[in-house]
Amino acid sequence: MFNSFGNILKVTTFGESHGTAIGGVIDGFPAGMHVDFDAVQQELDRRKPGQSKIVTQRKEPDTVEFLSGIFEGKTTGASIGFVIKNTNQKSKDYNHNTNVYRPSHADYTYDKKYGIRDYRGGGRTSARETANWVVAGALAKQLIKHINIDAFTSSVGDIFIDKPYQELDFSKTESNIVRCPDQKSAETMIAKIHEIRKAGDTIGGTVTCVIQNMPVGLGEPIFHKLHAELGKAMLSINAVKGFEFGSGFCGAKMKGSEHNDVFNQDGTTESNLSGGIQGGISNGMDVYFRVAFKPVATIMTTQQTINSDGELTEIKGKGRHDPCVVPRAVPIVEALAALVLADFYLIDKMRKI
Amino acid sequence: MFNSFGNILKVTTFGESHGTAIGGVIDGFPAGMHVDFDAVQQELDRRKPGQSKIVTQRKEPDTVEFLSGIFEGKTTGASIGFVIKNTNQKSKDYNHNTNVYRPSHADYTYDKKYGIRDYRGGGRTSARETANWVVAGALAKQLIKHINIDAFTSSVGDIFIDKPYQELDFSKTESNIVRCPDQKSAETMIAKIHEIRKAGDTIGGTVTCVIQNMPVGLGEPIFHKLHAELGKAMLSINAVKGFEFGSGFCGAKMKGSEHNDVFNQDGTTESNLSGGIQGGISNGMDVYFRVAFKPVATIMTTQQTINSDGELTEIKGKGRHDPCVVPRAVPIVEALAALVLADFYLIDKMRKI
Amino acid sequence: MFNSFGNILKVTTFGESHGTAIGGVIDGFPAGMHVDFDAVQQELDRRKPGQSKIVTQRKEPDTVEFLSGIFEGKTTGASIGFVIKNTNQKSKDYNHNTNVYRPSHADYTYDKKYGIRDYRGGGRTSARETANWVVAGALAKQLIKHINIDAFTSSVGDIFIDKPYQELDFSKTESNIVRCPDQKSAETMIAKIHEIRKAGDTIGGTVTCVIQNMPVGLGEPIFHKLHAELGKAMLSINAVKGFEFGSGFCGAKMKGSEHNDVFNQDGTTESNLSGGIQGGISNGMDVYFRVAFKPVATIMTTQQTINSDGELTEIKGKGRHDPCVVPRAVPIVEALAALVLADFYLIDKMRKI
Amino acid sequence: MFNSFGNILKVTTFGESHGTAIGGVIDGFPAGMHVDFDAVQQELDRRKPGQSKIVTQRKEPDTVEFLSGIFEGKTTGASIGFVIKNTNQKSKDYNHNTNVYRPSHADYTYDKKYGIRDYRGGGRTSARETANWVVAGALAKQLIKHINIDAFTSSVGDIFIDKPYQELDFSKTESNIVRCPDQKSAETMIAKIHEIRKAGDTIGGTVTCVIQNMPVGLGEPIFHKLHAELGKAMLSINAVKGFEFGSGFCGAKMKGSEHNDVFNQDGTTESNLSGGIQGGISNGMDVYFRVAFKPVATIMTTQQTINSDGELTEIKGKGRHDPCVVPRAVPIVEALAALVLADFYLIDKMRKI
Repeated sequence: MFNSFGNILKVTTFGESHGTAIGGVIDGFPAGMHVDFDAVQQELDRRKPGQSKIVTQRKEPDTVEFLSGIFEGKTTGASIGFVIKNTNQKSKDYNHNTNVYRPSHADYTYDKKYGIRDYRGGGRTSARETANWVVAGALAKQLIKHINIDAFTSSVGDIFIDKPYQELDFSKTESNIVRCPDQKSAETMIAKIHEIRKAGDTIGGTVTCVIQNMPVGLGEPIFHKLHAELGKAMLSINAVKGFEFGSGFCGAKMKGSEHNDVFNQDGTTESNLSGGIQGGISNGMDVYFRVAFKPVATIMTTQQTINSDGELTEIKGKGRHDPCVVPRAVPIVEALAALVLADFYLIDKMRKI
Repeated sequence: MFNSFGNILKVTTFGESHGTAIGGVIDGFPAGMHVDFDAVQQELDRRKPGQSKIVTQRKEPDTVEFLSGIFEGKTTGASIGFVIKNTNQKSKDYNHNTNVYRPSHADYTYDKKYGIRDYRGGGRTSARETANWVVAGALAKQLIKHINIDAFTSSVGDIFIDKPYQELDFSKTESNIVRCPDQKSAETMIAKIHEIRKAGDTIGGTVTCVIQNMPVGLGEPIFHKLHAELGKAMLSINAVKGFEFGSGFCGAKMKGSEHNDVFNQDGTTESNLSGGIQGGISNGMDVYFRVAFKPVATIMTTQQTINSDGELTEIKGKGRHDPCVVPRAVPIVEALAALVLADFYLIDKMRKI
Repeated sequence: MFNSFGNILKVTTFGESHGTAIGGVIDGFPAGMHVDFDAVQQELDRRKPGQSKIVTQRKEPDTVEFLSGIFEGKTTGASIGFVIKNTNQKSKDYNHNTNVYRPSHADYTYDKKYGIRDYRGGGRTSARETANWVVAGALAKQLIKHINIDAFTSSVGDIFIDKPYQELDFSKTESNIVRCPDQKSAETMIAKIHEIRKAGDTIGGTVTCVIQNMPVGLGEPIFHKLHAELGKAMLSINAVKGFEFGSGFCGAKMKGSEHNDVFNQDGTTESNLSGGIQGGISNGMDVYFRVAFKPVATIMTTQQTINSDGELTEIKGKGRHDPCVVPRAVPIVEALAALVLADFYLIDKMRKI
Repeated sequence: MFNSFGNILKVTTFGESHGTAIGGVIDGFPAGMHVDFDAVQQELDRRKPGQSKIVTQRKEPDTVEFLSGIFEGKTTGASIGFVIKNTNQKSKDYNHNTNVYRPSHADYTYDKKYGIRDYRGGGRTSARETANWVVAGALAKQLIKHINIDAFTSSVGDIFIDKPYQELDFSKTESNIVRCPDQKSAETMIAKIHEIRKAGDTIGGTVTCVIQNMPVGLGEPIFHKLHAELGKAMLSINAVKGFEFGSGFCGAKMKGSEHNDVFNQDGTTESNLSGGIQGGISNGMDVYFRVAFKPVATIMTTQQTINSDGELTEIKGKGRHDPCVVPRAVPIVEALAALVLADFYLIDKMRKI
């Protein structure tokens, strides 16, 4: 129940950082869709760590193997099983941390909850899990290809893009290593990350996601509102601390006379502070939301901590150093958004007799 | 599927603003709990609109009638059915808006999605639904009474409490009509709301919720993280535009060396920017989060809009004027938090062999 | 979770025999259907006990009150709440059995499981619950009115209809009090029941259900096969001990060369031992199944038993005597079959891209 | 949603007969159980086709590979992913049937439902899927090892074991190739199957399952009754046409005075026609049920049929000939029963406060 996401289009995943493989089952995918396997691989490549000079590079070729549910290139309506092999299972790297609880990681809570913990590379809590999401999301994107989903890095630390999204060119997002479509902001962000990296530290940031060409009517009241499912999805990503859509937290400072989106005669609205959603259901305007990521907990400096015997000890990050996880989160945000939308797209087929 | 909330402790609701009654079924409630009916009624009274001079007063005595699942004062393990009668069903009040789409309401999206809409008082989209949540939440609170859940108004417009929650006395929350435990901020907020009210306008704000005496181990990875479920719950409340927990959006500006919560020897942490949750599971520290509410869409001034025939027309709020919904949301936030926690409390019983 | 039935069209129920009311919530019902309220009431009337001389008569006027989800006579897509008031709550009738476990009833298991039991008239285990199912099933029937669902009493004790269903005229089912469309068998059954009644005893029987005008394609592999869901539904009815469809238990004695349904050129099959279902999915032929009911446990003669203190004691049925529950089960079987089919009808809308 | 089984202990499967691999995810398995991998393999070996002279032998070494959720030999509480590679993917064997609908198979219904069908060896509808169930069931058995689950072949064609199960020695079940614990019946069954095989035909039969050392209190009213879930599980097995428990269809011929299970002073009952379940909840007596299997549809003689172009044609079974599937179903019945019981075992932990 707890490793599944979605209602009709349901993804169930498994896998630890240093096991043989991770993978999952996609259930409820409709029959008859031609699968673009290259597009799936491209999304996996976007997620892959160590692609650039701002993070420690690691070879981790993620290749998905579809085991079922696709026949002669088309989905059959059967459940789609897939695995991604872990090619880099050097668990000895992690032996020194066997019983040490890393600050602001989930080591302590897993141990207390389950009484046992796969300590190798974070085990089930590893961000490696997101490769599963990217695979499922890539298929979902193909199912709803009439809808455009564009995420991008909107801030790193205190460096923000200072333009409305309407002025950005999303085709530029992949043109720089921070995945910021505003070239000037991108450069400042990159400089900031280099500085952080040099200090062995990490830094947070935000990802903004814009969904265009939205059909009217996606989302289900009362407890499956479109934005509530998007929020839950985003809050499932490691390191996420907040979610806002439309006017968001700024909206809480506004007056109704400023905030209301007045209708045009064609059913569109003049402003869109609602973020494309009214009463949990899309109104056809752009849906947009913002996700806050805290800085990665693994830092390269020494921190005090405890071990499972309750003794004080010290820990210092080893191996890969990821000073800012935000750019890598961009394809993950898109993948989850695609899963949410595809699920509602299917559900919506049943709304009327 | 879509009018249900929770996994094991599952609440399924029904009801429109101007129907005969609203209500629901609480399934999965364990047997053997003495029900404190007065406590349930108190929560309903807290939610009741029109209790003070800052909103137009309305007599709406909400009384819950439990129809099943409780025998001789104790829960039996059977599903708990309940209804709250609507005593004030003057649907004629709303006839003038029959086919007019109110800006930033869900009239348009419901009509487009379903091809039919109960236009009386917002129908299913009415905030009246939250009375159901408060009933279920009141029972959930009793199930987990060892956990303290305290919500309060933390901002109205641009007026914020400028203290950490640790310096607040939650026993003061109900002492003023804005439900702000900081008396000085409360006064400024009340003045602000009076001003807004006079202008026929509305204003947004935020509710903060603090959960103390948390057990370690509540929350389920990967897709039922404690904070993700809390976030989804809060985003289900009408008018909510954002959710953050722990360091929230501020955390996105921080460095790892600042943000990490260093362990004390007893497993507690020195700071608590994580907000009491690591990897989706509670670590025993306080859980705290903040919810952003946009200003209510119903304002007392004239706005341009369209009707269902696609004609331009005008609309002006009539009847009850609620210049700031935030104080009323306080018990709703608590109710949903209690439901989330009680659900995880039950699930957690199965974590080990 | 456990008081819900269905996947997309989901019915959640509550209520005890002697509470104020029973009822439920129907979630996932599509918008736009004109509700035939008279047809709903007719189904409730069919279920009502005490309609004839073969059972002790009881006045129990069951009237359903719809509280939501229907507006101006049409479904709105919102959840449909309903209640049926209990007009006959004389719990004192049951006081003599407060702590006595009736043989072959659920008194003992409920007490052991929950540590508490609503002993009035069976509490949650009462057959009164089926009134909820009949309400929901009556709406489901209207949603799939192109499909014909006909159940009837096919045996009482060792008296069986000795004809294939194709030779029966289902319009005759309601013409006699045992709901047997074969008049000759009906008379023998009635005589048998009179004899059983005189002895203060009870007798079992079977209900057969035939579903005609089935569309091809309803049912979902692997774990939601059409017949598996029908079987689960039927096994949820009190007193049911067995379910078979198509050739059923007789099929287990046959050879493949006898049992295979050879195709005609139009996709129909010459024989239909499969019972209209292949691989869990309807093939367009008639679906038919048979449900076995044990004799009612409440008999009017003295039986040895124990009480909750573990003391040996005696019990003798009082009040209403229902010598054969089978005829009353006919509308219940139809209602549950309608719910299963309507659920699959909705799910099937999503099968292809 | 449709390839999942169970509520808390949830198994989601994938895989086609001739794909690369089949497999699944077991979610909700509690942490801390030592896994007996040999016991899992033994169950897989029991399921393996072609073990004896009564079926055409095929080498199909089924080896399960656990990919996650088990660490240092113990379950961790994380989802357990597993795959079973298909070593024998000669899809060319099946090319001659590409567009021919085999009588009483699911070819026709899949094609009509999905518009596409993996025709290689039955695709998703292949009995190969049951290897997944056996893996999950083997783990479930270990979780509830205090409960004994014994299935056996109780009839082949019209040859029945003519003894009550209490007189059988289940340790003999595996001592003969039909898995019949009564040696004399076993010999007659084997002779019958040889005769059927020689004729290129197939024959049905029944499997009986007896569950001993049942705890009191497993099963959940109203819609998750223990026997209803067992029935649904069994009806999910290919070729199953009926399910009965306790007195079953015979009970429908009985009188209440004969059928009622009178209590002994210790809460046990003198007779057990209820089959160990009252009101959907186990009462501590043996649970027993019987499952009817039709004869396998693939026969070695020529049958008339149609193809996907609607043309009349002929078909004749090729390759493996399985004259009686019943003995192979024995471990599958046990596996599914174990999954149902383990699920209820977990759920039951939440029944009281």
